[in-house]
Amino acid sequence: MSAVPQSDAETLLLRRDEGGVAYLALNRPGQFNSLSQAMLEALIAEIDAIAADASVRVVVLSGEGKAFCAGHDLKEMRGNPALEFQQALFRLCGRFMVKLTEMPQPVIARVHGIATAAGCQLVSMCDLAVAADVARFAVSGINVGLFCATPSVGLSRNMGRKEAFEMLVTGDFIDAHEAQRRGLVNRVVPLEQLDDEIAKLTASICAKSPVAVQMGKQMFYRQLEMGMEAAYQMAAETMACNMMTEDAAEGIDAFVAKRKPQWRGR
Amino acid sequence: MSAVPQSDAETLLLRRDEGGVAYLALNRPGQFNSLSQAMLEALIAEIDAIAADASVRVVVLSGEGKAFCAGHDLKEMRGNPALEFQQALFRLCGRFMVKLTEMPQPVIARVHGIATAAGCQLVSMCDLAVAADVARFAVSGINVGLFCATPSVGLSRNMGRKEAFEMLVTGDFIDAHEAQRRGLVNRVVPLEQLDDEIAKLTASICAKSPVAVQMGKQMFYRQLEMGMEAAYQMAAETMACNMMTEDAAEGIDAFVAKRKPQWRGR
Amino acid sequence: MSAVPQSDAETLLLRRDEGGVAYLALNRPGQFNSLSQAMLEALIAEIDAIAADASVRVVVLSGEGKAFCAGHDLKEMRGNPALEFQQALFRLCGRFMVKLTEMPQPVIARVHGIATAAGCQLVSMCDLAVAADVARFAVSGINVGLFCATPSVGLSRNMGRKEAFEMLVTGDFIDAHEAQRRGLVNRVVPLEQLDDEIAKLTASICAKSPVAVQMGKQMFYRQLEMGMEAAYQMAAETMACNMMTEDAAEGIDAFVAKRKPQWRGR
Repeated sequence: MSAVPQSDAETLLLRRDEGGVAYLALNRPGQFNSLSQAMLEALIAEIDAIAADASVRVVVLSGEGKAFCAGHDLKEMRGNPALEFQQALFRLCGRFMVKLTEMPQPVIARVHGIATAAGCQLVSMCDLAVAADVARFAVSGINVGLFCATPSVGLSRNMGRKEAFEMLVTGDFIDAHEAQRRGLVNRVVPLEQLDDEIAKLTASICAKSPVAVQMGKQMFYRQLEMGMEAAYQMAAETMACNMMTEDAAEGIDAFVAKRKPQWRGR
Repeated sequence: MSAVPQSDAETLLLRRDEGGVAYLALNRPGQFNSLSQAMLEALIAEIDAIAADASVRVVVLSGEGKAFCAGHDLKEMRGNPALEFQQALFRLCGRFMVKLTEMPQPVIARVHGIATAAGCQLVSMCDLAVAADVARFAVSGINVGLFCATPSVGLSRNMGRKEAFEMLVTGDFIDAHEAQRRGLVNRVVPLEQLDDEIAKLTASICAKSPVAVQMGKQMFYRQLEMGMEAAYQMAAETMACNMMTEDAAEGIDAFVAKRKPQWRGR
Repeated sequence: MSAVPQSDAETLLLRRDEGGVAYLALNRPGQFNSLSQAMLEALIAEIDAIAADASVRVVVLSGEGKAFCAGHDLKEMRGNPALEFQQALFRLCGRFMVKLTEMPQPVIARVHGIATAAGCQLVSMCDLAVAADVARFAVSGINVGLFCATPSVGLSRNMGRKEAFEMLVTGDFIDAHEAQRRGLVNRVVPLEQLDDEIAKLTASICAKSPVAVQMGKQMFYRQLEMGMEAAYQMAAETMACNMMTEDAAEGIDAFVAKRKPQWRGR
């Protein structure tokens, strides 16, 4: 596990690459992996680097220590009371979150403990999420007089609006099974099976054509924001382009011949 | 329980305020609380009054008698056959429904009995809903040759489109547990526990910072209608502004000092 | 069961009309009812004919043989490698799918076996779907290097985005009960009860006012793509117009008089 160098000499992120998977871990266990300005900058730098790295096929995002992520760094926020600091911080956070949906590789949240406020937002903005049954989720900013506005963007795009609003206005926790029922996480397993379950998912994604996954992910989030007619037009164009790739030809030929396909990479 | 004065000398609405909660009850039990023109006008007037009343932190909307609300007043509609009357009625209804999402305080539907047609729409447009297990829900206009068009707006923003379309085209009832599974109500309890369950929810909301709840609710519905990028920009700005309030400073300081916060109100 | 004449003399579609219901069956059982260009053209022609046929009140779409529909015809696609063919094919497919939502009559998918890729998309784009418990659903194009872009449009408008993305990127199957839980199908029954269950649904729809169903279906999909304010304006106008029909007058009068209504048709 090699440390990503940080300007403040702290090892905010850990990254390990293996078999096409980049394992990226938030590493502020003493602060429950809270998203300080420096942490958000480190995440953006790392996400940008991974996006440009064709050897990475899928990203697993996790947290060191007891928590997955407890949201923003409240002490840092109180220590910098100027409006300009807050605006810059929340814009930075939003930019990072949107980047997760824009990068070519799928991102899986590995949620082993609590995910609160912007930590819950982080889960909502990953493409996929696998949770341990002991994990718990809340958007708890309202408890300290700070409505989880930016987290609500991702949360309300994962679950029903009444379900999201109740969490936002009460600050109450939901457990992992409820999170799955609502659509916030894909799979829930006992903690000791968490890495095995994620390995199944990463293996499945690594076995696919990289160019097809990349074209598909980009198209997926764009079409979500379109009307049906426009979405179909863009999706039809994407599929036609996808059909022109060597991987689609190889994939279909292999399927017809009942053999395993050999992808070209991206 | 004091009656809200009505122009037609009927007591269409009952309102009782206690501990920051406005309990507002539809009071046409003989007509299953149907939403006549006068009832809609009374509701708008009352909602406007509550919106401007800083002593109210949360609204509980209920129905007197056996039903929660059976929708529009069909006899009144048939007695006024002109197109202009119908247009004015449904616009009035839409204005009332949208106002529920625009007012600063969260609104909880207390659903103890049937909620049909515009009554089901009313549940869908409240921020939160708690139902008795005996409550039942339908958009039954189609049974009388009148597709529940305006109810479909709220319904299809609470549950999946196939689930909503089936209800709209069959007029069939779903029970309270199914309504919860689909996202139309937040909680379901036995009838005798309905008020206790609502009391838990109102207590939780009343314990929060009023200004944070207000900023959050307004932002929540606006961001739902935006693309992700624009939603994040607005949400980031809202959070930065929220951080400039005395309540956020107090809330975070209290959290760090492990004491209870003292909110300023709005 | 009479065959719809096809230009290539093949009987691609079977249609049988009975009691206001058009039963339309994909009839390429040897190719798992795959959606070749000719099949899509036949479907569009038939859908257009049904849309103009006032004797049809509801459509049941099914597949002959073992599968419901296995998506596009991969051999045809590989045999026509030009970009122009692919673009024309996927545009044709999109046009057909959108037509299902635009035609006046509700369309019910009868899913007795696998529904994969564009076959799963077809289920997602029908207004309603009833599945046998042995039916299974996947968007499996990713397995052959071809991300199911056009299927993702319908799929992500039926279920949560994480649920949809997992299916798209893994190609994994979900069973009928999971499909129902997610909102992709309305009802699941044992295979031997599939036609009885669909008969209940078609009987319910045939008992309704045709003009109300038609106005409602058209409004339903349009309002889904609007902001709340605009959606309410259009829905209010639709309801006012619906109130001006003879069927609404008859329906309400019959309801008040506790007798069965007599609809005029459309």
